[in-house]
Amino acid sequence: MGLGVARALLAKGFAVHAHDIVPERQAAAVALGAVGCGSAMEAGRAASVVITVVVDAAQTRAVLFGERGLCGTLARGSTLMMCSTIAPRDSEALADELAGAGISMLDAPISGGPARAHAGTLTVMASGPAAAFTACESVLDAMSAKCFRVSGRAGDGSRMKVVNNMLAAANLAAGCEAMAMASKLGLDLRQVREVVNASSGGSWIFTDRMARALEGDASVHAAARVLAKDVGLFVDTARDLGLPAPMSECAREIFLDTVARGFGEEDDSAVLRRYLEIYGKK
Amino acid sequence: MGLGVARALLAKGFAVHAHDIVPERQAAAVALGAVGCGSAMEAGRAASVVITVVVDAAQTRAVLFGERGLCGTLARGSTLMMCSTIAPRDSEALADELAGAGISMLDAPISGGPARAHAGTLTVMASGPAAAFTACESVLDAMSAKCFRVSGRAGDGSRMKVVNNMLAAANLAAGCEAMAMASKLGLDLRQVREVVNASSGGSWIFTDRMARALEGDASVHAAARVLAKDVGLFVDTARDLGLPAPMSECAREIFLDTVARGFGEEDDSAVLRRYLEIYGKK
Repeated sequence: MGLGVARALLAKGFAVHAHDIVPERQAAAVALGAVGCGSAMEAGRAASVVITVVVDAAQTRAVLFGERGLCGTLARGSTLMMCSTIAPRDSEALADELAGAGISMLDAPISGGPARAHAGTLTVMASGPAAAFTACESVLDAMSAKCFRVSGRAGDGSRMKVVNNMLAAANLAAGCEAMAMASKLGLDLRQVREVVNASSGGSWIFTDRMARALEGDASVHAAARVLAKDVGLFVDTARDLGLPAPMSECAREIFLDTVARGFGEEDDSAVLRRYLEIYGKK
Repeated sequence: MGLGVARALLAKGFAVHAHDIVPERQAAAVALGAVGCGSAMEAGRAASVVITVVVDAAQTRAVLFGERGLCGTLARGSTLMMCSTIAPRDSEALADELAGAGISMLDAPISGGPARAHAGTLTVMASGPAAAFTACESVLDAMSAKCFRVSGRAGDGSRMKVVNNMLAAANLAAGCEAMAMASKLGLDLRQVREVVNASSGGSWIFTDRMARALEGDASVHAAARVLAKDVGLFVDTARDLGLPAPMSECAREIFLDTVARGFGEEDDSAVLRRYLEIYGKK
């Protein structure tokens, strides 16, 4: 996703300084016109707006506060756009810590996947102080088709994202259960996808992931372990509030089982492979 | 749904003979130009193609084989279009019994809800002998935007429908869990709907049902007990095959709980009310 965002910004004429812990991805950004940086700290030196696109809160903290992290160089008055899916309380804590260093934070998770990141047509759900929105305005314009301004408080962007991603996970788990059953019942799976798309069972993630799964596309757009983590954030939020969340819990179990079977680094459409292992073909 | 189908056929110039056990609905069809019939048997006398749109297999059997049922008059060589959501094995059994009486059956469940029935833009997923498709061709054209020809054997239309409706039920149950949590977290629910629509968590039923739930629209488009029955058909199919179906089972439990709380005759978006009873508002 980070590479796609970098590309979208470069295409709109922004000067981008990029750091990725995977050298090949950083090289790809440099090939598109970015200035390569040996560390997050180096990238922070150049920028008034910094975007972090990593997997979770621990990685976000490492990029910010770790060795050679952004906070080593990021100037007072600069703005961090935090684009990862993390627990709302972690987002609030980050915003507080950064505010102490004079850095304002936009809690700005993104949705849409690598292709839409690449095209600059992501959906952003953002919350934070008005000044942070102002500082990020042109960047948000360049990277997204739609930016929802959720509220003035950090945490709410993440709340919105956790709610959305739970639905992505649950809809995908149900979709794979449906497809495995359809396979077992001898239905044509391409037709099932078409029928569901045109009927009351349709969902964005079913259409998107089943296309790849049915074409045997093994490229990883979003690793299964990531959505396992995301739906877990919803369940954790429910647990914090002492509330039941049976659909999310069930989806989490299915994702954890998918990861435990060795599919964690594969595309999350591998949940279908997990189901087919259990169901078998007709 | 039956009234909508009648309207779509009348709008295309078909002569429609209508029977409904609810007198008000039959009167509505008559007001649109249908010939009212005192029983299914009476309707069967006039028609070469008969459409049944009832809730389940028991009702379908009653309409066909019950007192003053269709089979009392339906001529050999006529065709039944069976549009209800029923167990695939029940559909197979019906087709066999009807074949014995010289009546061919199209296993033709419909999706899209009353508004699309009314507009003649339903999705149909149909299976059956080629002659049944030919007999129903102009009727299918008039009532649907898309008719999927699933296979030549009765049962497969129902298999496709059960797979689709399980997804509708699971996506709706997950959607209501997400919305109740969003409410508890203090998010604006209209914005949640908009964000999810534009993001990876979107689904057809979430968009459709949440619009009604958020507007406080109490009209019943599809009763909660119906989707409870439909997702149960998927679970039963899994049980017949000795297979686990955790997402469907979880959705079924939530629908049964919704019905047990007294919401069975209300619109299925009442699953959200069930969740809000448990979660409370913020």
